[in-house]
Amino acid sequence: MDSSRGRPSRRSALLGAVGLAGVGSAAAACADSSGSSGSAGGSTVASQVVAFHGAHQAGIATDAQDRLAFASFDMAPATKVADLRALMTTWAAAAARMTAGRAIADDESRPQSPPEDTGEAVGLAAGHLTITVGFGPTLFDQRFGLAGRRPAALVDLPAMPGDNLEASRSGGDLCVQACADDPQVAFHAVRNLRRLAQGSAVLRWLELGFGRTSTTSQTQATPRNLMGFKDGTNNIKSQDTATLAQHVWVGSETDQTWMRGGSYLVARRIRMLLESWDRDYLADQQNVFGRAKDTGAPLGTRTEFATVPLTAKDAHGELVIGADAHIRLAAPATNGGVRILRRGYSYTDGVDPETGELDAGLFFLCFQRDPRTGFIPVQRRLAAHDALNEYIEHTGSAVFAVPPGLRGDGDYWGSALLA
Amino acid sequence: MDSSRGRPSRRSALLGAVGLAGVGSAAAACADSSGSSGSAGGSTVASQVVAFHGAHQAGIATDAQDRLAFASFDMAPATKVADLRALMTTWAAAAARMTAGRAIADDESRPQSPPEDTGEAVGLAAGHLTITVGFGPTLFDQRFGLAGRRPAALVDLPAMPGDNLEASRSGGDLCVQACADDPQVAFHAVRNLRRLAQGSAVLRWLELGFGRTSTTSQTQATPRNLMGFKDGTNNIKSQDTATLAQHVWVGSETDQTWMRGGSYLVARRIRMLLESWDRDYLADQQNVFGRAKDTGAPLGTRTEFATVPLTAKDAHGELVIGADAHIRLAAPATNGGVRILRRGYSYTDGVDPETGELDAGLFFLCFQRDPRTGFIPVQRRLAAHDALNEYIEHTGSAVFAVPPGLRGDGDYWGSALLA
Repeated sequence: MDSSRGRPSRRSALLGAVGLAGVGSAAAACADSSGSSGSAGGSTVASQVVAFHGAHQAGIATDAQDRLAFASFDMAPATKVADLRALMTTWAAAAARMTAGRAIADDESRPQSPPEDTGEAVGLAAGHLTITVGFGPTLFDQRFGLAGRRPAALVDLPAMPGDNLEASRSGGDLCVQACADDPQVAFHAVRNLRRLAQGSAVLRWLELGFGRTSTTSQTQATPRNLMGFKDGTNNIKSQDTATLAQHVWVGSETDQTWMRGGSYLVARRIRMLLESWDRDYLADQQNVFGRAKDTGAPLGTRTEFATVPLTAKDAHGELVIGADAHIRLAAPATNGGVRILRRGYSYTDGVDPETGELDAGLFFLCFQRDPRTGFIPVQRRLAAHDALNEYIEHTGSAVFAVPPGLRGDGDYWGSALLA
Repeated sequence: MDSSRGRPSRRSALLGAVGLAGVGSAAAACADSSGSSGSAGGSTVASQVVAFHGAHQAGIATDAQDRLAFASFDMAPATKVADLRALMTTWAAAAARMTAGRAIADDESRPQSPPEDTGEAVGLAAGHLTITVGFGPTLFDQRFGLAGRRPAALVDLPAMPGDNLEASRSGGDLCVQACADDPQVAFHAVRNLRRLAQGSAVLRWLELGFGRTSTTSQTQATPRNLMGFKDGTNNIKSQDTATLAQHVWVGSETDQTWMRGGSYLVARRIRMLLESWDRDYLADQQNVFGRAKDTGAPLGTRTEFATVPLTAKDAHGELVIGADAHIRLAAPATNGGVRILRRGYSYTDGVDPETGELDAGLFFLCFQRDPRTGFIPVQRRLAAHDALNEYIEHTGSAVFAVPPGLRGDGDYWGSALLA
């Protein structure tokens, strides 16, 4: 997915030394124990850049980075479609620079102005930064003359049993998903796009997440969620282009051609009731998911990636993987073959002031070709029957149409919609 | 500071394979591109362990890890000093295991019980985890019979100009500072200590932070705060044992011998008014700090680590580093030689619901031999005069007596106080 190569640091870029001194070998990338190459002028850091332009937006099929900053915005009052177009153009130029590991402007030469770039990522590597933008259903109301361009697939998500949604954590006209290896790089991206939006859009909500933790474990093992279980075992892999084409990318079926090559993003903030979960027996926890906690193996099997034995029964004639087990209800095999691309991150937002319990859980992101056949029926089934429901609560929800990738410099998100 | 060596993963530890299959070479630590060693039984990940036992607690002079989870606890109603002693003993045993990269218990053999370890760090490396515990002033009230043992240095922090403290982000009987390379490892530590405290202590507040970001930058360059400036240039280094002995570790001067070898921790949640800051001119931003934003060099110098030219004047006879510049007011040279060991982390807590502005800034931690000669006079001076005050607001505050290190298995925090 990613093109890995040596890049100058953001600092070098800021100083105009772009491309002169990249160091790309794995050996250089691992030379952190020397600790001596950081401060001299023109220093370089080995880093990885994900291509910003392409048929699809990066940050969807891209191998999941460790850290997330996800922001929802509303267009400011009295803005018009020209403001939206200008914002997308401005954001695209800034995103192209930031994802390449560069500051959004050369500020050193203008001391008597506010810096255009806020600066906290100067000196840091690109860190696989991806910036993915989507359009919420409300963008297609009467304000921008886009009502006739709303894709049929961009439905308002129906209420689900057990939802306990907060308006301040839900919805939005626009979303920005910034993923990177480094939380400061991801936060910097969202913060600077927000600054560029001043006067045209306002921040509605923001969630930070942490994920694979692969920089520490040095493996690509399936990450664990905050319930301690492996999460994402059977997710769609970035190299599985046929499955992506079938289940994730919008194709010729769309009623809105500007969405071809795009996808639909559903975001759910799923709070885990960790105090209750932690009191449950290990055997019960395993029955809730249908997997062994330590190995991640489906119950009745020995390895994480074994086929889920949905029909197997034990000596008492009982299903080994219970009728209400999460793994059964979420399996494509029991959902008419539907698959969605999950991209979840753990979140921790401190202590709930009302209960004293932890406000932590899963910030669930998923991409699909059509939410009407993807997230919605799967979640309706889960919400009705999943044994996991006793331990979770959906507190935020949003859906966005994610337009296709940008073709090159000058292109912008939704150009086929807004031009 | 740290002993770096190969360690089995937490999973191996859980399965009882401790110490059999460590892989310690730097080459192994860097072999993440192979991506194939993660899931087989008995797999190992190269990882780094910070020694848990020692004369001083780890997590003070230890080189700052990238991620922080900081929790404040209050003892539960009606608990007695025996409960406090039991809690410290339980916590010490769990911390010794977790900092070594192990789960706190072998749960696999007891499926009909709630797991003792919550499991989300299984398979992850130790990640330089340190767990540092402190005692707040309120622990020395009438509840535990410790009023006569309160060190004189453990003063209540005085109110400062510009404080806007929230009770729900301030104070506490106990604190746990967990630092690690990985946020999931740090969070896991706090969460599991909290579980072990059920019935004896309740979580009061929790803050997550991100810091050096050195795993990405592959350098030990000075990190930047969210204002975009390098932060920590002249901090005390872990190898500077003479300075640590003079300014950080409690010595024979203490009125409470149980604190010898300990330190005092001040925690301040410093919100940055980033929207205002971002509108300021670059030249003004640089004058506020007294440093160049890009290089970190003190104004009037060319390199980050140059001596701060406190008396230099420009062609107009004006001080190059202004009278109200942060770097001047915080400098040891203008504070009677006082030095404090800073250990700050950036935080981001979403959007302020009242203003729509970002709730983000610096979670400032500092360690010192005596707050009465360390943080308090320095902060009083800063609060009165610092040009930075226009852009920051202190929203949380706490102080803790941090007892000395644990001598070995069976020892616990404050054993000389509580035994």
